Amino acid sequence: MNDETATQPSFPLRETDDDARQLARQLIGDVRHAALAVLDENGAPAVTRIAFGVESDGTMVSLISDLSAHAKRLKAHPRCGLLIGDPPQKGDPLAFPRLSLAAEVRFLSRDDPSHSARRDEWLKTHPKSALYIDFSDFNFIAFTPLHGDLNGGFGKAYHLTRADLI
Amino acid sequence: MNDETATQPSFPLRETDDDARQLARQLIGDVRHAALAVLDENGAPAVTRIAFGVESDGTMVSLISDLSAHAKRLKAHPRCGLLIGDPPQKGDPLAFPRLSLAAEVRFLSRDDPSHSARRDEWLKTHPKSALYIDFSDFNFIAFTPLHGDLNGGFGKAYHLTRADLI
Repeated sequence: MNDETATQPSFPLRETDDDARQLARQLIGDVRHAALAVLDENGAPAVTRIAFGVESDGTMVSLISDLSAHAKRLKAHPRCGLLIGDPPQKGDPLAFPRLSLAAEVRFLSRDDPSHSARRDEWLKTHPKSALYIDFSDFNFIAFTPLHGDLNGGFGKAYHLTRADLI
Repeated sequence: MNDETATQPSFPLRETDDDARQLARQLIGDVRHAALAVLDENGAPAVTRIAFGVESDGTMVSLISDLSAHAKRLKAHPRCGLLIGDPPQKGDPLAFPRLSLAAEVRFLSRDDPSHSARRDEWLKTHPKSALYIDFSDFNFIAFTPLHGDLNGGFGKAYHLTRADLI
C-alpha cells in the first residue's frame, strides 16, 4: 500500500528533523499499549485499546485474541491506525507528544518457529500478559508502518515517512 | 445512521445491566481527553488525541481546530469512533475499563448563541484550553452516540445501545 503523502495534515507542518524522528522512535519504544483504529463491518472507524511493544529488531507488535472484534476486523481490512504516546497524569494532554501512525497488520501464527522467542521477549516488557499469552486464541500481530503524524504539542506538527519511522 | 447492532464483538458478551451502564457513563463523565478514530482521505482509519468533555445536559463535546486533519476528515465523514477511559499508571492497561464508542459528529459554530455558555462550561473542566479557546479556528463539535462496546477488563465485555449511553 502506498498512501504516504495523501494524509498529511493541513496544520502548518515543521520540517521533519532528527529531533522529530528521535521523538517518534522514543514514543514507539516507550509505550506498552496503544489505541488501535480499524474499519468495522460497516466501513466505519472504530477504536480500541491494545497492548503494544517493539521487538529487538524494531518490529512493532501486539498480542491480541482471535475472539476480539478488532482481530476479525483486521483480518478483513489490515490497514489500521495507531495512537502512540501515553497521556500525562497532569497538564493538558494535548500539550504532550503523541504519534498517529498509519500501518498495515500481518498476523503471526503461534505455530511459527519464531513464536517461542517472540513470546519470551514480549513477556519481558508485558509480564502481566503471562496470564493469557498461552491461550490458544491469543496471537501476535506485526505492524508495518506506512507513515506517521507526530504532534509534539501545540504548533509542533511533523509528517514522518516510513523511512523516518524504521 | 442506524448501525446499532452490526458491530457487536464476537467475544462472549455479558448481558448489559445497570452496573455496565453506570460504568460507561462514569467513564464518559470522568475523562478529559479521548482517542478519536476517523476515516482519512483514502478511507483508511486514523486515530488522534482530542480533548473531550460532557456538558451539564449530557452532550458529549470536543474543542478542535479547523486546521487539524481530523476536523477536515470529520467534515467529509462525520461517523467516528472514540476510545474513552484513561489507561492506568500501573498494572495491565487491558485489565482496566474503557469504552469504544461509535458516534456521529455535528459541528457547532462559534457564532451560535449557545457558544458563550458552552465556552464557559468547557473552561471549568479544561482550564488549560483558555490558551487557545478564543482563536478563530477553534470550534466545538458534539458527538451523537450510536452504540458502544464496554470492556470492563478481561472477560467483562458488554454491548451498549444508544439508549444505554444517554
